[in-house]
Amino acid sequence: MRILVTNCNTTEAMTARITAAARDAAAPGTVISGLTPAWGPESAEGWLDSYLSAAAVLDLLRRERERSAAGGEPFDAVVLAGFGEHGREGARELLDVPVVDITEAAAHLACLIGRRYGVITTLDRSTGQIEDSLLTAGVADHCAAVVATGLGVLELDDPARSAAPLRRAAAEAVRAGAEVLVLGCAGMSGCAEALAARTGMPVVDGVTAGVRLAESLVALGLRTSRTGSYRAPLPKRRIWSPQHG
Amino acid sequence: MRILVTNCNTTEAMTARITAAARDAAAPGTVISGLTPAWGPESAEGWLDSYLSAAAVLDLLRRERERSAAGGEPFDAVVLAGFGEHGREGARELLDVPVVDITEAAAHLACLIGRRYGVITTLDRSTGQIEDSLLTAGVADHCAAVVATGLGVLELDDPARSAAPLRRAAAEAVRAGAEVLVLGCAGMSGCAEALAARTGMPVVDGVTAGVRLAESLVALGLRTSRTGSYRAPLPKRRIWSPQHG
Amino acid sequence: MRILVTNCNTTEAMTARITAAARDAAAPGTVISGLTPAWGPESAEGWLDSYLSAAAVLDLLRRERERSAAGGEPFDAVVLAGFGEHGREGARELLDVPVVDITEAAAHLACLIGRRYGVITTLDRSTGQIEDSLLTAGVADHCAAVVATGLGVLELDDPARSAAPLRRAAAEAVRAGAEVLVLGCAGMSGCAEALAARTGMPVVDGVTAGVRLAESLVALGLRTSRTGSYRAPLPKRRIWSPQHG
Amino acid sequence: MRILVTNCNTTEAMTARITAAARDAAAPGTVISGLTPAWGPESAEGWLDSYLSAAAVLDLLRRERERSAAGGEPFDAVVLAGFGEHGREGARELLDVPVVDITEAAAHLACLIGRRYGVITTLDRSTGQIEDSLLTAGVADHCAAVVATGLGVLELDDPARSAAPLRRAAAEAVRAGAEVLVLGCAGMSGCAEALAARTGMPVVDGVTAGVRLAESLVALGLRTSRTGSYRAPLPKRRIWSPQHG
Amino acid sequence: MRILVTNCNTTEAMTARITAAARDAAAPGTVISGLTPAWGPESAEGWLDSYLSAAAVLDLLRRERERSAAGGEPFDAVVLAGFGEHGREGARELLDVPVVDITEAAAHLACLIGRRYGVITTLDRSTGQIEDSLLTAGVADHCAAVVATGLGVLELDDPARSAAPLRRAAAEAVRAGAEVLVLGCAGMSGCAEALAARTGMPVVDGVTAGVRLAESLVALGLRTSRTGSYRAPLPKRRIWSPQHG
Amino acid sequence: MRILVTNCNTTEAMTARITAAARDAAAPGTVISGLTPAWGPESAEGWLDSYLSAAAVLDLLRRERERSAAGGEPFDAVVLAGFGEHGREGARELLDVPVVDITEAAAHLACLIGRRYGVITTLDRSTGQIEDSLLTAGVADHCAAVVATGLGVLELDDPARSAAPLRRAAAEAVRAGAEVLVLGCAGMSGCAEALAARTGMPVVDGVTAGVRLAESLVALGLRTSRTGSYRAPLPKRRIWSPQHG
Repeated sequence: MRILVTNCNTTEAMTARITAAARDAAAPGTVISGLTPAWGPESAEGWLDSYLSAAAVLDLLRRERERSAAGGEPFDAVVLAGFGEHGREGARELLDVPVVDITEAAAHLACLIGRRYGVITTLDRSTGQIEDSLLTAGVADHCAAVVATGLGVLELDDPARSAAPLRRAAAEAVRAGAEVLVLGCAGMSGCAEALAARTGMPVVDGVTAGVRLAESLVALGLRTSRTGSYRAPLPKRRIWSPQHG
Repeated sequence: MRILVTNCNTTEAMTARITAAARDAAAPGTVISGLTPAWGPESAEGWLDSYLSAAAVLDLLRRERERSAAGGEPFDAVVLAGFGEHGREGARELLDVPVVDITEAAAHLACLIGRRYGVITTLDRSTGQIEDSLLTAGVADHCAAVVATGLGVLELDDPARSAAPLRRAAAEAVRAGAEVLVLGCAGMSGCAEALAARTGMPVVDGVTAGVRLAESLVALGLRTSRTGSYRAPLPKRRIWSPQHG
Repeated sequence: MRILVTNCNTTEAMTARITAAARDAAAPGTVISGLTPAWGPESAEGWLDSYLSAAAVLDLLRRERERSAAGGEPFDAVVLAGFGEHGREGARELLDVPVVDITEAAAHLACLIGRRYGVITTLDRSTGQIEDSLLTAGVADHCAAVVATGLGVLELDDPARSAAPLRRAAAEAVRAGAEVLVLGCAGMSGCAEALAARTGMPVVDGVTAGVRLAESLVALGLRTSRTGSYRAPLPKRRIWSPQHG
Repeated sequence: MRILVTNCNTTEAMTARITAAARDAAAPGTVISGLTPAWGPESAEGWLDSYLSAAAVLDLLRRERERSAAGGEPFDAVVLAGFGEHGREGARELLDVPVVDITEAAAHLACLIGRRYGVITTLDRSTGQIEDSLLTAGVADHCAAVVATGLGVLELDDPARSAAPLRRAAAEAVRAGAEVLVLGCAGMSGCAEALAARTGMPVVDGVTAGVRLAESLVALGLRTSRTGSYRAPLPKRRIWSPQHG
Repeated sequence: MRILVTNCNTTEAMTARITAAARDAAAPGTVISGLTPAWGPESAEGWLDSYLSAAAVLDLLRRERERSAAGGEPFDAVVLAGFGEHGREGARELLDVPVVDITEAAAHLACLIGRRYGVITTLDRSTGQIEDSLLTAGVADHCAAVVATGLGVLELDDPARSAAPLRRAAAEAVRAGAEVLVLGCAGMSGCAEALAARTGMPVVDGVTAGVRLAESLVALGLRTSRTGSYRAPLPKRRIWSPQHG
Repeated sequence: MRILVTNCNTTEAMTARITAAARDAAAPGTVISGLTPAWGPESAEGWLDSYLSAAAVLDLLRRERERSAAGGEPFDAVVLAGFGEHGREGARELLDVPVVDITEAAAHLACLIGRRYGVITTLDRSTGQIEDSLLTAGVADHCAAVVATGLGVLELDDPARSAAPLRRAAAEAVRAGAEVLVLGCAGMSGCAEALAARTGMPVVDGVTAGVRLAESLVALGLRTSRTGSYRAPLPKRRIWSPQHG
């Protein structure tokens, strides 16, 4: 089974980190291909970045689909590794294979191991976007809070710097009722273990959750429904960038 | 006062129609500038089109903003003329001036003239997207139903063809509790009068509603809040297309 | 265009203040007629006052309607200037012209300029009433909080006294997620500018919002739907006061 | 124990019918005093009537309270016998004794004997008002539907005429999921038995439910909370009618 | 009228206390029979206890039903005296007479005497269970908060020990908007008066509320609907314990 | 990895069918142990059965836990194979390993492959119970409908008999907006393929979904949170049946 894992920004180092996390989580026999969009923002922090990222990721998937249709290596599922980012439904429409967004993936698994979950994310400006993403994915009901740490996406690398803000945000989520923590950024994968140790709570990372859910759908032969919202795109003229279609 | 009205697709004829409707609705002294994105889908029908359109419209607005910052004609507000399309929050983040999306605009006015409203739209594949757009805009509570006519965006021109499907969809909305009808496509502007006559119900068109709401915000000196979700975008590297930034 | 703006209480000085705010906000060519009910409470602070006020305002509108039907000056819309007060739906039923309540008006515009809004009002006893009014108007979804300042309606005149309570209430609304502030009392119109300056947030006043929304509906030819909840009242015997009908 | 049961309209015959139903339902030792407002509509059918009725009923209760304070016979609770009519919260604010509205009363008991209940009411114009009343009373969650029969309030007398419309409305409520029927008009009391026989379902009448709930509150020493929304009215000038205060 | 009041645990002393509270609350002529399950937990604190208790209480009711069918003393209603415990719907299905759970009973009466109510309960581990019970009973809308005191079910006896935790929990409920307090444990009956005196708020005890509501249903001839969710159990083989059926 | 799959009733043939479905779905290396409760109903059809089943399944798990603690074969996760049945939260409290209920499992996967899902179940009496189970699991938001076929649990064996009712129920779910079908009974596993072929929609079976989700949790090292609702049971006297503790 081959799963594409798409970074939502153009920072290759982050794709590498996400890909590594995905590989660690994957079942034996699953091949993970990490992909970086050719355009878009260097990090997705806010709505403008998110919509730009969505189009760039869809462009990336469109090209992968064409490549595979032209005899390239096929893929069995896609994991969209941008926490709270847009594009999910467009990818479902575009592709025949299952598409799992790490936002919803983390929430789905979190619901199974606690009565309420809390999301710990980067900047305050992202919390509303994550709330909307959980809401439209149908998994907001058991979300107790989405809490910002104040850390930028590209500051997460340094554990010495991020430990205290993560702990403070976790404590706020617990006060709001969280029994499980969800890491609200694809770049936080590395923080799960330490945070779990410090809080005594299960910590769900969306990338690893997304990989396992994608594998599950493929194993069970489940694909995106084509009878309603996610019918295949209508054939029409679409220009994907100012220069070429 | 100058208001930009952005079409969500690349079809110039539709921009012309939207611009004409906006001009008819504008107060004396308001200048309407209709804009067509340089890229994106020729019509937005579904999630893939919508996300592509969102990035293209944001690219368009980014250029208008730079042009105006470079001494070009300033603008006072933006009306996003794509019913149910994405991008709204990104435009609010990007710009200092008020941004009104025709989806929410129509719903806001509809709530003032009836207890429940119903949206009449084009294809079945768009109803879920419109529901999500109303939900995240905070105006879904009084929406009785979103009903598809089965007509494509570019088939709306012909009244002979569209009259019966519109009437059937209106009747279904009424059975679901609608007391006001909302035209769920920027291209339906021309149908409002006939539909109102046939149903005896008020019919709200998003383009005209959007123009009046944008004027109201400008007249009252109200601008998008910069303290929370819609803080100005962080400075960073963003590539808006494969070829150039 | 002539718009009636009805105070919800019998205090003429407050009618004068509301009328002045409405005139400042109105478009050129709009004539604002401020009206005071002939009976009811001297200020509306709580449910009892609100229901008494609702009947007195409906009585007032009934008389204006008769006066206009008898050849008096016609009016094109009504703005109900009682924040959180009852009566809105009765006025819609009674009149053929659009009716806009300042509670919903402020909320509608607030939704367009921030992801969540907070209402700053007078006494603690009024917060529940305002919550119910927003809920039944269909605009409660994006309300982060309704916060009382502890100031009585007739204490708002003195800026020296009201500044600190308003600021404290605004801070509480922000903690609850508000990105936009709504002034939750018709008598607060004068406080908007200072509060906006102090908080750096947009501040929406219902009276001015109501006038602009009423103008918008009239300009677009939109009237209250007569097909459902707001059908014209059935002819019957109604006694409007113990002495005379 | 003495319970006041207030009709919401000025039709004495309806007060008599309501009072009789209340007496049939009351426990031994409970004295029912049926009261008719001195002013207001002859029947409450729509929002205008409802707000007029609310003020008239509050005026009536204010007078009863003064009478009792002046040494007249005291009362222990009030039942507001207008289904879906306004005023409930004002009466709670005004009085020290418990106030039960027949709308909520019927819903509370219905929730105890079935998973979902349906309301059968008079005219289509009243359904939205009843929905709002259930919502603000906190008992809308288990309401499957509010269905109109098309019968006017004053047409309910004639069982020959009302039987078929009631049965049709009941069937529609069942299709929507109702397991219990609620009679959505104070004037329908007489229809409960026949409707229960015909449908095999329990049928809850608000007047009788209201009496029993009021008795329960009094017996348990429970009174309206005075710490929040329903603090006693502030002393102030209130004019209850054009002629006198 | 004879009402069975079932304790949810095997502690006879608690049955005695509940029975006494029920008798105090009952109308003249009502006979209260307090029952203790033959098996189950000694106190119900958490989900495991709750499900075990539910089966044991249903077993108890099944035996009472058989006893009564075999010529034993009949009963007219059942009050389930386990706050937040499971089993309610099963008892409705099993029996022809009305079944009232003290959780919902307290909430129903609380809604009639304040705009929002707060539940004060024992351990933190029970709050989620109570929230779910209120939600599925259709009375969660007006619940402001469920607050734990930290007291175990069997520690409630000692007023010297429980007074301060109860007061602290009450204060937290008030901050969340509660205007009425609900005692969230059948063993708290004795605390109502003191808590009401200390807080100035009405305090609702579920046992007494349940008895009065059960009496009301019986008096009005209202029984559980048999047309939907609560149809009589299908005849089948059921083994109620490892040893015998 | 060893996963216990518990049937909710005492019918061994159904355990066998469920176990076979679980084995087909499990990843290589997963050992499935199908278990039948020693007591409870022969099929779970309604609330009474469900609560009886919950206690019996918890008794079963308690014994397995003791067996394993006493040196018996350990297990890594539990799948509760009763669609819409109670007990889920009790099992989470009881055990250290992850617990997945097939109701929620099917809903979680269904949300990933369509915008709305519909549940097809057995008898009309079960629909409300399933709705409540989805609601308290936090996955009801995207459920379009729960539709009964009219087939009893033990009638599902015969495809000739069940095909038409399943198809009719599926059509009703689609009319309500479903884009994905969920099989609402553990005994329907065998019907998935035929139903998918007939409807062109993805069909999710809870047993297979549950197995894959349980495997995912185990693989990711995620266990039930012990910090809130699902703290380990308090040590106390619990009698699991009339004869012995």
